[in-house]
Amino acid sequence: MRLSTPQFQRIEQSKNFEIYFGGSEANVAVALAQWHVGSKHVSQLPDNELGVAALQAVKQYGVDVSHIKTEGKRIGIYFYEHGNTWRSPKVVYDRYHSAFSYLKPETFNWEEILEGVNWFHWSGITPAISQTAAHACLEALKVAKQKNIIVSGDINYRRVLWQYGKVPSEVMPELISYTDWVIGGVSDFENCFNLKANREEPFEETCKKVQSTFNNVKYIAKTIRELSEGSVNHLTGVLWNGQKLYQSKLYHIAETVDRIGTGDAFMAGLVYGALHKKLDKEIIEFATSAAVLKHTIPGDVLCAKLQEIEDIATNNNIGKLLR
Amino acid sequence: MRLSTPQFQRIEQSKNFEIYFGGSEANVAVALAQWHVGSKHVSQLPDNELGVAALQAVKQYGVDVSHIKTEGKRIGIYFYEHGNTWRSPKVVYDRYHSAFSYLKPETFNWEEILEGVNWFHWSGITPAISQTAAHACLEALKVAKQKNIIVSGDINYRRVLWQYGKVPSEVMPELISYTDWVIGGVSDFENCFNLKANREEPFEETCKKVQSTFNNVKYIAKTIRELSEGSVNHLTGVLWNGQKLYQSKLYHIAETVDRIGTGDAFMAGLVYGALHKKLDKEIIEFATSAAVLKHTIPGDVLCAKLQEIEDIATNNNIGKLLR
Amino acid sequence: MRLSTPQFQRIEQSKNFEIYFGGSEANVAVALAQWHVGSKHVSQLPDNELGVAALQAVKQYGVDVSHIKTEGKRIGIYFYEHGNTWRSPKVVYDRYHSAFSYLKPETFNWEEILEGVNWFHWSGITPAISQTAAHACLEALKVAKQKNIIVSGDINYRRVLWQYGKVPSEVMPELISYTDWVIGGVSDFENCFNLKANREEPFEETCKKVQSTFNNVKYIAKTIRELSEGSVNHLTGVLWNGQKLYQSKLYHIAETVDRIGTGDAFMAGLVYGALHKKLDKEIIEFATSAAVLKHTIPGDVLCAKLQEIEDIATNNNIGKLLR
Amino acid sequence: MRLSTPQFQRIEQSKNFEIYFGGSEANVAVALAQWHVGSKHVSQLPDNELGVAALQAVKQYGVDVSHIKTEGKRIGIYFYEHGNTWRSPKVVYDRYHSAFSYLKPETFNWEEILEGVNWFHWSGITPAISQTAAHACLEALKVAKQKNIIVSGDINYRRVLWQYGKVPSEVMPELISYTDWVIGGVSDFENCFNLKANREEPFEETCKKVQSTFNNVKYIAKTIRELSEGSVNHLTGVLWNGQKLYQSKLYHIAETVDRIGTGDAFMAGLVYGALHKKLDKEIIEFATSAAVLKHTIPGDVLCAKLQEIEDIATNNNIGKLLR
Amino acid sequence: MRLSTPQFQRIEQSKNFEIYFGGSEANVAVALAQWHVGSKHVSQLPDNELGVAALQAVKQYGVDVSHIKTEGKRIGIYFYEHGNTWRSPKVVYDRYHSAFSYLKPETFNWEEILEGVNWFHWSGITPAISQTAAHACLEALKVAKQKNIIVSGDINYRRVLWQYGKVPSEVMPELISYTDWVIGGVSDFENCFNLKANREEPFEETCKKVQSTFNNVKYIAKTIRELSEGSVNHLTGVLWNGQKLYQSKLYHIAETVDRIGTGDAFMAGLVYGALHKKLDKEIIEFATSAAVLKHTIPGDVLCAKLQEIEDIATNNNIGKLLR
Amino acid sequence: MRLSTPQFQRIEQSKNFEIYFGGSEANVAVALAQWHVGSKHVSQLPDNELGVAALQAVKQYGVDVSHIKTEGKRIGIYFYEHGNTWRSPKVVYDRYHSAFSYLKPETFNWEEILEGVNWFHWSGITPAISQTAAHACLEALKVAKQKNIIVSGDINYRRVLWQYGKVPSEVMPELISYTDWVIGGVSDFENCFNLKANREEPFEETCKKVQSTFNNVKYIAKTIRELSEGSVNHLTGVLWNGQKLYQSKLYHIAETVDRIGTGDAFMAGLVYGALHKKLDKEIIEFATSAAVLKHTIPGDVLCAKLQEIEDIATNNNIGKLLR
Repeated sequence: MRLSTPQFQRIEQSKNFEIYFGGSEANVAVALAQWHVGSKHVSQLPDNELGVAALQAVKQYGVDVSHIKTEGKRIGIYFYEHGNTWRSPKVVYDRYHSAFSYLKPETFNWEEILEGVNWFHWSGITPAISQTAAHACLEALKVAKQKNIIVSGDINYRRVLWQYGKVPSEVMPELISYTDWVIGGVSDFENCFNLKANREEPFEETCKKVQSTFNNVKYIAKTIRELSEGSVNHLTGVLWNGQKLYQSKLYHIAETVDRIGTGDAFMAGLVYGALHKKLDKEIIEFATSAAVLKHTIPGDVLCAKLQEIEDIATNNNIGKLLR
Repeated sequence: MRLSTPQFQRIEQSKNFEIYFGGSEANVAVALAQWHVGSKHVSQLPDNELGVAALQAVKQYGVDVSHIKTEGKRIGIYFYEHGNTWRSPKVVYDRYHSAFSYLKPETFNWEEILEGVNWFHWSGITPAISQTAAHACLEALKVAKQKNIIVSGDINYRRVLWQYGKVPSEVMPELISYTDWVIGGVSDFENCFNLKANREEPFEETCKKVQSTFNNVKYIAKTIRELSEGSVNHLTGVLWNGQKLYQSKLYHIAETVDRIGTGDAFMAGLVYGALHKKLDKEIIEFATSAAVLKHTIPGDVLCAKLQEIEDIATNNNIGKLLR
Repeated sequence: MRLSTPQFQRIEQSKNFEIYFGGSEANVAVALAQWHVGSKHVSQLPDNELGVAALQAVKQYGVDVSHIKTEGKRIGIYFYEHGNTWRSPKVVYDRYHSAFSYLKPETFNWEEILEGVNWFHWSGITPAISQTAAHACLEALKVAKQKNIIVSGDINYRRVLWQYGKVPSEVMPELISYTDWVIGGVSDFENCFNLKANREEPFEETCKKVQSTFNNVKYIAKTIRELSEGSVNHLTGVLWNGQKLYQSKLYHIAETVDRIGTGDAFMAGLVYGALHKKLDKEIIEFATSAAVLKHTIPGDVLCAKLQEIEDIATNNNIGKLLR
Repeated sequence: MRLSTPQFQRIEQSKNFEIYFGGSEANVAVALAQWHVGSKHVSQLPDNELGVAALQAVKQYGVDVSHIKTEGKRIGIYFYEHGNTWRSPKVVYDRYHSAFSYLKPETFNWEEILEGVNWFHWSGITPAISQTAAHACLEALKVAKQKNIIVSGDINYRRVLWQYGKVPSEVMPELISYTDWVIGGVSDFENCFNLKANREEPFEETCKKVQSTFNNVKYIAKTIRELSEGSVNHLTGVLWNGQKLYQSKLYHIAETVDRIGTGDAFMAGLVYGALHKKLDKEIIEFATSAAVLKHTIPGDVLCAKLQEIEDIATNNNIGKLLR
Repeated sequence: MRLSTPQFQRIEQSKNFEIYFGGSEANVAVALAQWHVGSKHVSQLPDNELGVAALQAVKQYGVDVSHIKTEGKRIGIYFYEHGNTWRSPKVVYDRYHSAFSYLKPETFNWEEILEGVNWFHWSGITPAISQTAAHACLEALKVAKQKNIIVSGDINYRRVLWQYGKVPSEVMPELISYTDWVIGGVSDFENCFNLKANREEPFEETCKKVQSTFNNVKYIAKTIRELSEGSVNHLTGVLWNGQKLYQSKLYHIAETVDRIGTGDAFMAGLVYGALHKKLDKEIIEFATSAAVLKHTIPGDVLCAKLQEIEDIATNNNIGKLLR
Repeated sequence: MRLSTPQFQRIEQSKNFEIYFGGSEANVAVALAQWHVGSKHVSQLPDNELGVAALQAVKQYGVDVSHIKTEGKRIGIYFYEHGNTWRSPKVVYDRYHSAFSYLKPETFNWEEILEGVNWFHWSGITPAISQTAAHACLEALKVAKQKNIIVSGDINYRRVLWQYGKVPSEVMPELISYTDWVIGGVSDFENCFNLKANREEPFEETCKKVQSTFNNVKYIAKTIRELSEGSVNHLTGVLWNGQKLYQSKLYHIAETVDRIGTGDAFMAGLVYGALHKKLDKEIIEFATSAAVLKHTIPGDVLCAKLQEIEDIATNNNIGKLLR
C-alpha cells in the first residue's frame, strides 16, 4: 500500500494521504492483463480490510488472484512524497513484518500454480524482504525451469530493504541462474553479483560479463535515465540480446506526474513485446514507451491501452486533443 | 456540462469528477461579458437541475440568458481527462439526444432576438449536432444578414459529432455564405467545403481560395499550434483581412492547465479586437493573447480581465508576483 | 454510473460529483460475491472508458463478468442528491439511449450462460428500459425454467423509466409467470399486474391474490419503510412463504448515509438466506439486516461481511467500538 | 463572504475553508428570485476579486445587481464552524472596515432604484454596521414610504456588530417607524426599542405593545426555536396580523446541515406568502417551511424550488426517494 | 498515527485517509496544555518524517516535548472507520514493532523528568505494548512515588494489544499499587487484577474491592456508556472518592462525530478538576462534560476551551448560535 | 493568514481556500528552528480562534512564542492565486486593521526579550503596516544595538502596504542605521533611502553607495530572479561583504510550486550561513539553495532539512528517487 501526500505536500505537512496499491510484480501483472495477456499474481496479504482492498485493486484489472494467500497481520506500506524540480521524490518504507515477509516456501504449490504458464516474472524486492520469501522465490524458479517456462527477473536493488541478515550477493546469483531475461544496470550487478564492472565501459561489455557468469541469461535490459536541471527526465531503453544492443529513441519528459512503477511498466512492455513483437528493436521501443507513459499516470500501475503505447513508440498524435 | 477527472487521473481511475459548464458559443459570450461587451446567449437546456446549473454558470457572468429555452430531457455531457507530456488530453462525448439537439427552427424568434444586435457568432458545433439545430442556425444567419449584423463563424470541425446523416459539406457552405469572419484552418476547409488545398501552401493562398468561393467572407483567422516534446505548446495567431496576413508573436506555453476553450478565447478576442482595436495586427495579438491566457485557467471559460490579456500582448509583468 | 453531490449539496450547487457504479442486479451479485456465493453478472456496457470503469467496479468484488458485452455509445447515468430530515433524497435519471437499452435478445447465449447455475435473479428495471431488454429478460427466464433454476424477480417499479411505449402490465405478468421469488409491494402489484388490492388489507391477503394469478410464485417478500419526522426510517421485512407471513424485527435508522441499494441488499440477503438458512424467519431477519446495514454505507453496493449482518440480526455489538 | 470549516472541524484545526457568499438581505433576494419574484439587491462591494465573486454569487440566481456599487477595500468576512449535539455553531466576525460599512447615503439614488418597486426589505444588520449605512437605510425608507412601497424589516439584533458608537435604541425606532412588517422577538424589541416586555407574557401582548408605539406596523412575525438534547431543533413560526396570532405547525429538525440563513429564508417566505397566499395562516406555514428547509441546505442561501416548500407545508413526500 | 477513512467510507472503499496524531497519554497532555495546565509528554518516536509530524502535532499545543526520544523505524498506526447507526466504528491496529514498543527503561532519566512535577499520568496501553515499555512505566511510577507526585492510571484494557507474552494480571497490579487515581470499570478490573466482581453489584462495591487490594488507591472513576438504537450514546461519569460515589448528569449524544479520545478527554477533565475544583461532584461533572464534548470534535485530541466544557456542565448556551 | 485558491483556480472561481500561516519574520524563525537554531518570534495576534491557529502554526516548529501578545480583533489576511506560465501569481491583501497593526512600542519589553540573543531580524513589512509598528521596530533595534546583537533587515518594499501616511524614506533610513545585514535590491534602496542608483551599474557600485550613507552596514545581499517564457525562473544570490561580491550558481527552476516565502528562505539561509559557514561564498550558496528549495514546497514556510539544502548547494542527488 502506498500512502502519498497530495500534490507537492511534504510528508510532515500533510493532513491526508492518497491510497494506491501496487508492488513490483503486481504492477507487471496488471499492465499485462489490460493488454489481454492473461496473468496471475502470487502473493500473501494480511487477513484484514487492507488486505481485501489490496486484493480488489489487483482483481479489478482481471488478474487471476486465486493463488494469493490471506495470512498475517499487516500490509507492507510505503509513504511517498512527489518531487519537483530541485526537490527529489522520496519514499519512506514501512514494510517490516508485513504479511508478505512471512510467506513460506510451503505456502504455495508451484507445480499447480505454474501449470500451463509460459512466462514467470520475479523481482529483486521479494528476496530482499525475508529469508523465507527468498526461498519461496527460488522454489518457484526451480519448478518454472523444469516446466520450460521463460523466466524474467528485475533486479530492483534497494539497499534499505535488505535487513534480514543476508547480503544480495549471497542470494541473488542462484536466482539469476534460473533467469532468461534479466533487467538491471551496472550498479545492480555490482551489488547483487559482485560483478567487477567499469561504469564507463559500454553496456555491451557489462552484459557479456554477466553472461559469462550466468550463461543461462539470454536478454539483458535496462532503462537509462538522465536528469537535467533537476526536473527533466531523459529516458532511453536498451536491450542486449546476446549479440547486439538495441536502443530506443531518447524520450524527454519535461515533468513527471508519478515516478513510481516506471520500471515495472518497462518490464511489462518487455514481456508484451517478447510475446507479440517480431524484432528486438520493436520490443525495446515498446517497453520504453510503456515506461515513458507511466510517468504521466498517477498511482503504481500503468493504467493504459496498448494503442497509447504504440502511439508513443511511433510518435503519433502526441499532445493532440483526442476526441 | 464537462466532467473532468481531478488533476492527471485517468477516467477509469477516477472517483470524482469536477463539474464545469461551457460550450463553444457560450464561452465566447462569457468572455465578452467580462470585458463589458454586452452579450446574449441563445440555446436550449433541459428542464432539470442540471439545466438550472448550466444556466446559472452563464448568468453569473452577466450574459443575457433570457432567450435560453428550457425543454428536453438531458444536458449534453463530455468527459475530459487532462493530458501531460506524452499523454494526450482526451474527450469522451456523451452528447447524443441532448436538449440542445432537439431545438427547432421555430424555437426562437430571431427577429426579436437580433433586434439591436451588432455581432452574431455561431460555431460549427451547432450544425453538427442535429438537423434541426443546423436549420435553426441557418435561420438566424438569414435574419442577421437582413439586419446587417456582422457574423462570425468558428468552423470547429469535430468528425465524431456529425452523426445525424449529413456530412459537413452538405451543410456548412450555406452557413458560411452568410458569414463575415471565418475561423478555421486548412483541414476545416477541406472537410467542410471540399476545398482543394495544399497543406504546404502559404495560408494566404488558402484564404484566397476560400474567398473565391465565398466572396462574402472578409476575415479569416486561426491559431497555429505546434508541439514539442509532447508538452510544450507553441502558439501563433494569424489573421487574413483579404489583403494581408497578420501574424501574432509566437508564444511558448511550457505547460497547460486547461486546453479546453482556448479556441473560444481566441474567438472572443477577435470580436473584442474588431470592436475596440484600430489595427488588424492589434486584433490578432489581442486574440492570440486571450487564447494563450486560457491555457492557464481551469474550466471552459476564460475567466480574465482585459488588462491581463493586454499584459500578455505587450509582454508586461509576465511571471512577476502581482500585489 | 451514479454521480452524487458531495455531502448534502444540491445538484445545482455542486462543483464535484462522486462517482459510484451500481445497478439493481449488479448490486445483488456484488453482495453475494462478498459472501462467497459465486455469482455472475450479465449486461451490456459501452465501449469507452466509462464502460471499463463500470466493469472494474463489479470485477473487483470477484463477480464473473465474462458475459458482459461491450457495445454501444453511452453508459446510463443517474444524478443523486442525498436528502436529510425535511429534504427528500432525489434522483435525476439520464439513462435514455444507454448501451444497456440497446441489448438484444440474441446478444446472449443463455443456454451457455445458465449452465450449472442454481439461481437466476432479474429486476423490473430491465424490462422498463427497452423492448429488447424486456425480450432478453424473457428469453433468459424461459431457459432458466427449463433448467429448473430458481428464479427471483424484484419488481422495482419506477414509473419514469417506462418510456418505450409499453406499460408494465403488458410486460411484467409474463415475466412473473416464470418467477419463484417475487419482491414487491401492493403498489408494485397494482401497477404491474393490474392487481385489485386493498392497501388496508393484511399483506397475506395480497400475497394470496398474487399467487392465485401466478401459481408458480412460491415466496413473496418486501420491506416496509415508515418515516417519522422526515428523517428516521423504521424498517421491517416481511416474507410470505405461501402459508405464513414472517416478519423481521423493526429497525429504527436514525440517520441514513446512503439510501440507494437498500432494496438490492435486501434481495441479496434473501438469496443468501434461502441458500444457507434453515428457517424462513431466519431468512427474513438476515435479509432485513442486510438492508439495514446498507443504509450506513456509501455507494450503491453493500460492502460488508457476513458477520456484520449476523450481528445486526442478533443485535450483537451494535454501536460498540470494535478493535 | 463566509469561510466555513469543512464538516465538523474547528476553526483552529482546519486547513481549508469552504467559501459561501451571503448576507441577510441578499439571501432574501436570492430566494425570491428563484421563486420568480423579481428582486434587486442594493449594496456596496470592494473593487477586487472577492467583490467580483460576491457579485456573481448573487447574479447567478437572476437578482438584479445593477445597483450594487463597487468601491472600498475589503469584503466583510465571517468565519463559521458548524456545531453538532453538545457543541454550538460558532461565528467569528471579521466585518470591520468592509466596503459595505463605508457606503454613504449619497451612494444611492433611491428615487430611481425604487421606481416601480412594490416591496422594500431591510435588516438590522445594515444600521448596525456603520453610521453611514444606517443613514442610507433611513434614506431608502423615506423614499419607499413616499412611494407607498410595502416595507419589511428584520431586526436581526447582533450585539457584537454595534461598534460605531450608537446603541440600537438610538437608531432602530426611527427605521421601524417606516416599516409595515416587523420580524423580531421579545429580546430584539427590548434591545432595539427599549420595550418593556415580560418574556412570560403571550406574544400577542408583546405585539400589541410594539404596535402601540409604532402604529405604522401591520404585521409582526418571528420563529420560535426550542432545542432539546443539544441538537434537535423544534421550530414554529408565528405571525401577528394586528388582530390574531397565527402559528405554524411545530417542525422537529433532528439534525441541521446549515443553520445560517434560516431567518432569511423565513423572511423570504413571508414576502412570497404575502404576495401570493390568500390567508395569513398559509403565509406563516409557507414561511416556516422555507426556514425548515434551509436547515437542510449548505450555504447562506435557500437554494430550493417553490414546490419543495409547499411539500413541507403540506407534509407531502417528506423523506421519500424522489425519482 | 491514525489513518481514518473520510466520512462514512469503509476501509476497503476508501481512496484517501485523513491523518490524525494522538495517543492515550498524549491526548491528556494536549487537553491540559490548552487549559493552561503545564504538561509534558514522554515517549519515543521514529527517526523519520512521520515522527516529526507526530512531534509537531503535540508541540503545537504547547506540550513540553523535550523528553520525547527519536529512535526506531516505524510509528504505530491504527486505521479507523467511523460507525453510524447500525454500523459500529472500527479500529484496525498496526502497532507492532513501533518505535514506542522498543523504548527501554534506561531510555529516560525519570529523576530529571519528574523534577518539579505534581501529577503523573500513565495508561494501560503502555504496558500492553511491550515488556520494555511496561518496565519503563514501572520505573517512572517508582520515582513518582518517591517524589510524592500524584499518579493517575487509565486501565484502558485492549485485549488485542497484549501480544508480547504476558497477560495483564501479571503486569498491571504492580503498576496500580503506585497509583492514586484509577480509571476503569468492572471488566478492566477483572481482566487486569483478576478481581472477582459481580457486574450487577453497585459500582461502590466494586470500588471497595479494588481498594481492599490496593489500599493506595484514593479515587476510582469511569464513564458509563449506554447505547440505544445503534446510534444514540447516553453517557454518565462516576467518581468514587473512597467514601461516596458521585455521578454526573446523564448526557444524550444523538450523533457522534468522533468516538476516539473520549476516554482521554474524561481523564484530562479529572486531572483538571482535581487541580482546580473544590468539590468531587464538580470534578466528575467537568470530566464528563469534557468527554461529551470530545464526541463532537474530529481527531484524537479534545481541541476545546475551558469555557466550552463549563457550558456543557452547566447546560449553558447549548445549541445556540454563538456570535 | 494566507488563503490560497486550490491548484490553479482563480480567486473568482474558487469554492475553497487552503489555509496557510506565515509572515516574513515568522518564516525566517520557523526555518531556523528546523535547523536547530533556537529562535523566538515576537508579534501580536488577535484574541480569537484564528490567532490561536496562527500561534500553533509557528509553535509546532519549536519557535519560542512566549513573547507573542494576544490582543486585537482581526488577523491580517492575504488571498493568493498561483500563477503559471503566462499568468502571474497574484496577492490580494486584506491586512488593514490587523491585530499586528495595533501593536504599540510599549507592548514589548525588549530588554527582557533580547536578553541572551545574538541575532535580531526585522523586515520592512513591519514599519509599513502602521506608525506604532514602526516605532516598536525602532525600539527593538536600539536595544539590540546596545546589546551588540547582530541585526539583519530585509527591506521587502511593498508599495501597497504603506498606507498610514508616511513614505518609506521617512522611516526606513533610521531603521537601517542600526542594521548590519541588509537584504534588498536597487529599487528597494531607491524607494526606501532615496538612493540615486543606476540600474545598469554593477551591484558593487550600488552597495558602496549604500555603505557610504549607512556605514554601519556590513553585508548586503539579494536574489536576482530572471524569467523566461513566462514560467521558468532563473535564480542567483549575491552577497557583498564590503569588499567583494560573491555570487551563487545560477539555478533554473522550470516550474514553481509556491513562490511565497522564497525571500524569507533566502534570509534564513543567510542567518544560518553566517552562523555556521566559514566562507562568504558558502553562505550565499547555502542561502540561495534554501530559496530555490522553497519554490518546490507549498505554504509560506520552508519545511526542509539542512541536508536537503546542502544537496542543492552541492548538486547532489537532485531528481533521484530517495528511498
